[in-house]
Amino acid sequence: MALRSAQEYIEGIGKIHSKIYLGGERVTDVLDHPTTKTVIQANAKVYELSQDPEYREIMTAKSHLTGEVISRNLHICQNTKDLEMRAEMALLTSQKLGTCNYRCPGCDVLNGLASIIYEIDKDLGTEYYKRLMDFTRYLQKNDLAMSGGVTDTKGDRGKRPLQQDPDMFLHIVEKKSDGIMVRGAKQHQSGAYASDETLVMPTLAYREGEEDYAVAFAVANGTEGVTFICQYNPYTVERNTEADIHQLGNPIYGQRETSLVIFDDVFIPWERVFMCGEVHYTQRAVMRFAKMHRMNCGGACKVGFADLIIGATRMMAEFTGLAEIPHIITKLTRMAQISETSHACAIAAAHKGVEEPEGSGIFLPDDLFGNVAKLNTCYGFWEIMALAGDIAGGLPVTMPSEKDLDNPEIGPYIEKYLKSAVSARKRMRLAKFIQNWVAGLHGVGTWQGAGSAEAQMLTLHRIFDFESRKAMAKELAGL
Amino acid sequence: MALRSAQEYIEGIGKIHSKIYLGGERVTDVLDHPTTKTVIQANAKVYELSQDPEYREIMTAKSHLTGEVISRNLHICQNTKDLEMRAEMALLTSQKLGTCNYRCPGCDVLNGLASIIYEIDKDLGTEYYKRLMDFTRYLQKNDLAMSGGVTDTKGDRGKRPLQQDPDMFLHIVEKKSDGIMVRGAKQHQSGAYASDETLVMPTLAYREGEEDYAVAFAVANGTEGVTFICQYNPYTVERNTEADIHQLGNPIYGQRETSLVIFDDVFIPWERVFMCGEVHYTQRAVMRFAKMHRMNCGGACKVGFADLIIGATRMMAEFTGLAEIPHIITKLTRMAQISETSHACAIAAAHKGVEEPEGSGIFLPDDLFGNVAKLNTCYGFWEIMALAGDIAGGLPVTMPSEKDLDNPEIGPYIEKYLKSAVSARKRMRLAKFIQNWVAGLHGVGTWQGAGSAEAQMLTLHRIFDFESRKAMAKELAGL
Amino acid sequence: MALRSAQEYIEGIGKIHSKIYLGGERVTDVLDHPTTKTVIQANAKVYELSQDPEYREIMTAKSHLTGEVISRNLHICQNTKDLEMRAEMALLTSQKLGTCNYRCPGCDVLNGLASIIYEIDKDLGTEYYKRLMDFTRYLQKNDLAMSGGVTDTKGDRGKRPLQQDPDMFLHIVEKKSDGIMVRGAKQHQSGAYASDETLVMPTLAYREGEEDYAVAFAVANGTEGVTFICQYNPYTVERNTEADIHQLGNPIYGQRETSLVIFDDVFIPWERVFMCGEVHYTQRAVMRFAKMHRMNCGGACKVGFADLIIGATRMMAEFTGLAEIPHIITKLTRMAQISETSHACAIAAAHKGVEEPEGSGIFLPDDLFGNVAKLNTCYGFWEIMALAGDIAGGLPVTMPSEKDLDNPEIGPYIEKYLKSAVSARKRMRLAKFIQNWVAGLHGVGTWQGAGSAEAQMLTLHRIFDFESRKAMAKELAGL
Amino acid sequence: MALRSAQEYIEGIGKIHSKIYLGGERVTDVLDHPTTKTVIQANAKVYELSQDPEYREIMTAKSHLTGEVISRNLHICQNTKDLEMRAEMALLTSQKLGTCNYRCPGCDVLNGLASIIYEIDKDLGTEYYKRLMDFTRYLQKNDLAMSGGVTDTKGDRGKRPLQQDPDMFLHIVEKKSDGIMVRGAKQHQSGAYASDETLVMPTLAYREGEEDYAVAFAVANGTEGVTFICQYNPYTVERNTEADIHQLGNPIYGQRETSLVIFDDVFIPWERVFMCGEVHYTQRAVMRFAKMHRMNCGGACKVGFADLIIGATRMMAEFTGLAEIPHIITKLTRMAQISETSHACAIAAAHKGVEEPEGSGIFLPDDLFGNVAKLNTCYGFWEIMALAGDIAGGLPVTMPSEKDLDNPEIGPYIEKYLKSAVSARKRMRLAKFIQNWVAGLHGVGTWQGAGSAEAQMLTLHRIFDFESRKAMAKELAGL
Repeated sequence: MALRSAQEYIEGIGKIHSKIYLGGERVTDVLDHPTTKTVIQANAKVYELSQDPEYREIMTAKSHLTGEVISRNLHICQNTKDLEMRAEMALLTSQKLGTCNYRCPGCDVLNGLASIIYEIDKDLGTEYYKRLMDFTRYLQKNDLAMSGGVTDTKGDRGKRPLQQDPDMFLHIVEKKSDGIMVRGAKQHQSGAYASDETLVMPTLAYREGEEDYAVAFAVANGTEGVTFICQYNPYTVERNTEADIHQLGNPIYGQRETSLVIFDDVFIPWERVFMCGEVHYTQRAVMRFAKMHRMNCGGACKVGFADLIIGATRMMAEFTGLAEIPHIITKLTRMAQISETSHACAIAAAHKGVEEPEGSGIFLPDDLFGNVAKLNTCYGFWEIMALAGDIAGGLPVTMPSEKDLDNPEIGPYIEKYLKSAVSARKRMRLAKFIQNWVAGLHGVGTWQGAGSAEAQMLTLHRIFDFESRKAMAKELAGL
Repeated sequence: MALRSAQEYIEGIGKIHSKIYLGGERVTDVLDHPTTKTVIQANAKVYELSQDPEYREIMTAKSHLTGEVISRNLHICQNTKDLEMRAEMALLTSQKLGTCNYRCPGCDVLNGLASIIYEIDKDLGTEYYKRLMDFTRYLQKNDLAMSGGVTDTKGDRGKRPLQQDPDMFLHIVEKKSDGIMVRGAKQHQSGAYASDETLVMPTLAYREGEEDYAVAFAVANGTEGVTFICQYNPYTVERNTEADIHQLGNPIYGQRETSLVIFDDVFIPWERVFMCGEVHYTQRAVMRFAKMHRMNCGGACKVGFADLIIGATRMMAEFTGLAEIPHIITKLTRMAQISETSHACAIAAAHKGVEEPEGSGIFLPDDLFGNVAKLNTCYGFWEIMALAGDIAGGLPVTMPSEKDLDNPEIGPYIEKYLKSAVSARKRMRLAKFIQNWVAGLHGVGTWQGAGSAEAQMLTLHRIFDFESRKAMAKELAGL
Repeated sequence: MALRSAQEYIEGIGKIHSKIYLGGERVTDVLDHPTTKTVIQANAKVYELSQDPEYREIMTAKSHLTGEVISRNLHICQNTKDLEMRAEMALLTSQKLGTCNYRCPGCDVLNGLASIIYEIDKDLGTEYYKRLMDFTRYLQKNDLAMSGGVTDTKGDRGKRPLQQDPDMFLHIVEKKSDGIMVRGAKQHQSGAYASDETLVMPTLAYREGEEDYAVAFAVANGTEGVTFICQYNPYTVERNTEADIHQLGNPIYGQRETSLVIFDDVFIPWERVFMCGEVHYTQRAVMRFAKMHRMNCGGACKVGFADLIIGATRMMAEFTGLAEIPHIITKLTRMAQISETSHACAIAAAHKGVEEPEGSGIFLPDDLFGNVAKLNTCYGFWEIMALAGDIAGGLPVTMPSEKDLDNPEIGPYIEKYLKSAVSARKRMRLAKFIQNWVAGLHGVGTWQGAGSAEAQMLTLHRIFDFESRKAMAKELAGL
Repeated sequence: MALRSAQEYIEGIGKIHSKIYLGGERVTDVLDHPTTKTVIQANAKVYELSQDPEYREIMTAKSHLTGEVISRNLHICQNTKDLEMRAEMALLTSQKLGTCNYRCPGCDVLNGLASIIYEIDKDLGTEYYKRLMDFTRYLQKNDLAMSGGVTDTKGDRGKRPLQQDPDMFLHIVEKKSDGIMVRGAKQHQSGAYASDETLVMPTLAYREGEEDYAVAFAVANGTEGVTFICQYNPYTVERNTEADIHQLGNPIYGQRETSLVIFDDVFIPWERVFMCGEVHYTQRAVMRFAKMHRMNCGGACKVGFADLIIGATRMMAEFTGLAEIPHIITKLTRMAQISETSHACAIAAAHKGVEEPEGSGIFLPDDLFGNVAKLNTCYGFWEIMALAGDIAGGLPVTMPSEKDLDNPEIGPYIEKYLKSAVSARKRMRLAKFIQNWVAGLHGVGTWQGAGSAEAQMLTLHRIFDFESRKAMAKELAGL
């Protein structure tokens, strides 16, 4: 069973009884709760796409471990074509879902972690890589949904882990013969509660003395001590209380749903531990993950979102009779420029990817272009939102409800006064879809995903080869 | 009674039984409904500020009609100092409310309309100005809350009013001996249902043959045929269902609440009709209103909002221990630069204001600087949101609920893991306040209020004196 | 003689025999040298404008010392109207000259210095202010041209004055009974060699132990030990070798001409010493000057330049038949927006100016708006150049010479092929004028003048009242 | 002889006696004239690089016509790797020259023209493609330098060719048995006079009735009727009069040198005519050329320039002790981001290139990414200039001459006061190099090269697939 059906995935999740809380209450059936259900549905769609012959090249790969056709979400990239297809998968799922492919961070953690522990094993004689490959074989064989856990809660950001409550960063609290006990929390975890497994890695570069924090491991959902506390915002409330999902902005797949994942002394057996104390490798670990994730997040996933916004905005311009106005055309074209610029960066990052470390067979994207992809997207996505809001007009933020449209007394008013070149209902549905973007969670989410702009600036400053450019200038200037 | 108390205002509104709908249901008590109540409270606060000696210079003025101290919201500006104080009022109320001063558009329509009909009367021998002054005296004497109605629904924007359903623009359907009957709708009407009166004016430049559309009038809330259909979005649902308003982003005053106002054959007596068929004056009418409103909206109201965002973001940087990081300082300073740039434009617009038309005693802001104020704000406000989202981190869009904090099982987790330099609750409340801005309705609202960026560009192109600049260049270039 | 004629100014300069070098050679007649002459002509024009009744309100003021009508360049601002007129003067002279009013920095140093030494005297019982007023009386009585000297050469910017060659910052090398000896250099000195006097002040905030650097004084041109070494760049060479100045981009007034001014043990008598060792006042000294200069430089002078560029660009669009194309209109309007935004900031800075220090009678602009003016201009001016280059096309950088037009063999080709809606000569003259801006020294000059963008950011961060904004947010968020 | 040496190229040019004018005078020896010599030297360097084993993969290719190793400048791209190397060549030559690879437009015209005439032949049965391949074989065999001629002078841009002087667009004035006579001019021709051949193509989309304008041909330098009138600007004068080229900003290779190329009834034999009247193919002809040229110009050539500016700016920061200041680091990183963004677009354009038309074997870059590359560069390059000017300080525009440094009287002053962490001479040379960029011709040149930003916007609007994005949005929104 290398590729599960959507139904098989859903059934699998149904059997796991994770501790999930939302809005102060325990979620007892993750499959049916209005909000958690959107994550299930998004994941199910990804399973479905993987079985669709039209998307096979993008959504699946041939395992380098087993030779079987597997979900690309569980694949370790073996060449630049794989990297390109990995980015294409991110683009496609965004276009199809309008929210996260929730298996995306897990995939990028898997690749980044494989790369660094291959190196650790070589340097230190450990056998993390073998363990991770065994685990990967297991994932692939069962086509499991895996999320990735990276971001710690950090507490006071001006302080190191040991200068404050030591649990503000996830760490080992005990080493036992059969495994380790870990404590801490990972935040902003997209779709974690609807996964089968979570792959956890360090959040930043640790120093000597902080060895307990240099830990990577896998943990199955439902494991004792793991609790998911879901995000809760106006969009959550709207969905929880709305009987007719078609009146929501992204009816089926919703907003990106994250949770705060608590690890309250969770036991991890050694075969699921992939890093344990190697502080000197933590910075590189983060960078390897970031290479993958910035390319995919900045240059593909958000390009797919932008495609949806551009398409919706163009449609709205047509609905209101404005599509041929020069400034509208200029703005729509500008939106395309922004979006395709990030896309180009991802393509360049994939195409210029290299094996890392040498001999590992693992390919990672070019760091420079991956970071540039994300950086351009940080600023560009907000501009796309602004321009969408310009063209769509005030309606996405001032619109009444379809319930008003359905009310016999005032429905005719809405029908009459909100029609344009199309019916009021059609226009309202599109306005609601646009509301989901221009007055929602995605501006901040896009900026912060895969690290905020400053993280990319720091990386870019570190990796950009200023010396070679100085040499060029020196030669020409005759210095 | 030149200045009513907040309580008197509320009692007044309580006596009016407007037809208001929200989410498909009739709102029977506007004073108590969770959403409409926020508008009442915002207005009440404005009444309160007017009686506060600290804000007297800003919030009140001496009526040029009666010599009495009145609310500046009902004042017709008599000099540049008045203009400056008008803008200061917009700034102050935004800082205090974090939402609309809902009397603001009414004030700007009053000033703009007074200016143009003074001119109409002079040209055509009509007596609109006298009527409007009588009405203004009535407003001032009773210190009424008045909203302004400008934006028609427009239908297919590529078509003129008579090329489509003629009701897509508000117009006169019958002239009678004692008044007129009007039909149509005004959309995006901020706080209209919580006002005593609404002052309506044309939405754009009408042409010959479209005389029925060149109409301005006042209508009391509660008048037969007027229906308010409220906006409805995730924020509405959250507020409607939340028992503890302190868990909301702007607890007392909420988001800006608008409605679609339907005029279904409403009778307006002649003494409340201030324009009736003068199509040649409609473009100027819109421009006079825009002069006032772009200065106030772009250069003052949104500056007040920006102050709140900047203050909150700075506080969050302190909460998380990041306040001294160079890039955080740069970003906060950039936010201040953007905001104060718009502020400067408003000050220049007020300071360079002139009497218009000559002899009227009415002062309007400088058109160029008012438009530039708004234009800078359109783009700048989104950038402020982006930077706030950068500094505040992902929490404003991934945060759980305070309900989770209050849950005995998981509350301790939240308390532990979301604390930083301050307690989790404090940090969450601030994150929720920031959510209200960076994931809310204000981005689009700010862009569209007082006309979208393109409206300002068009005006700017028309009024900027290219000829004098050509002459300067010509002289220097020796052409 | 409160207002000299242009001729009188020129005669005055002719009598001074300053040591001036340009391109490695001594300039023996500053009045006739092709390059230095442009500065003389610019200054002469400013004298001329001061006598022109049309510009009297802008170009002259009533001395608070003598009650006489004087050049505004020598005036100490007494109220906000003065500040506004000061900025208007900067705007007007830029529009008329297309280069520096070379008396501008002197004027701003005079005002800034007067303000700080009034304070020093009050605090320390010195009598600098009286000395400066005596000197000012002398300047006013003789209507002298005075430049201002602020920027030291600084050497290695990572080091303090005493950590490197101590002369990298201008300082006192000896105190005598009758005066002081100073050594060092001031760079980027606009038009200094064509002035009668130079008023020198400290370049930055000095600390205890650096007392010798806390020095301000006036020095007459021609004083022993002062040497001017002029800037030299492609524009210099072009002008030096061109027989027909009408073939140059700004025929009469040229590019902004600066020099490196060397002070090689120059004696300054005590009555011309205005600060001597008061290190604790140096930071404030710089800030007071900056207040004046950032308003004038960023919000007025460069607005005048922008007016010329906008006028020329619009004309070029007409010459080439492009003036009605939508994107051209949008770009020209954007140029106006940028320019008028800075202008608005200057107006606000002047209008919000206050007496400083209290009781001094000296008015300085609002610091916040002055800094914002300059900051907006830093970025905006480059964008204006970019847009001018867009609309004017490639010609400003690929054009042949009018010499080609005058050559009988190829002149007809140029005449034929470079004509458009106007003759080739007319178009070429305008292209040359635009070349002067878009391929010249003004981009960098504008950015660096009155301090680079970062200097404004630092100031803005220091003066923006974050605390009051935090308080507003706190109150609304219910914290 | 598939690869000539630099010396052979120079000797070849020496034998051609083109009619060249500069500054109103005939240039009789193109090899020695200070200005035209820079073009010779730049071309010579390109020949030299082609023979350098280090750059072989980039600078040479295997001819698809002869199988021989040829200059990539004469190669027709056969696959995406070729496209990528084509862009790499543009990057490398910019880094090495700091000015044009003057063979670049010729190469892109060759590729674009080959593509369209392959299609014309197929559609219309003409034999242009065979002719062009014969000519290409000749070029390759002799390793000739070829420039490309695209941009007509256009006259009044609001008028079509036949509505004004018909010669404002290059056209056929006579068809003869052995060839055609052409008249008109091409402007902005980079380095044309230092080439062996020029390949000319139409400048825009012609319509029926304008058949005489749909003409493409090759013409050897030195042909009767062809005249080159060189650009002339401050940089030209500086170079023409400077004895020591090391005192110039780009000592050996200079600024980009262009000329206006006049075709005064030039005879072209049929075997050199590659298009003759096929108006319906002119739009596509321009687009095919633009595909190549926008990728190379926007995404590679200017990236090389940016590398030089970044390298020089970073060095200057080190020279002045500022390299570790946070805002300097941020600005340098931002410069890298801008530059590498355009670079990524070129890589994506090459990588996504396709055979066009099918069966031709000719590969052209992806249109979307090529246009986006150029568009980003238009705006980005000005920002890079602005930031370079920020970090380098005022010196690049206020610096004196090295002649001053060499003057015994004032040299010591310069030596003393302009030193920093390095000697004054070193700092001045670097400042002069930076002056060449930030106060030179490249801002406008970069914007206009390969068409101005608006040309890219128009193309982007045409080619971006809005329909597929509308469909995605429609599906998700449930419309």
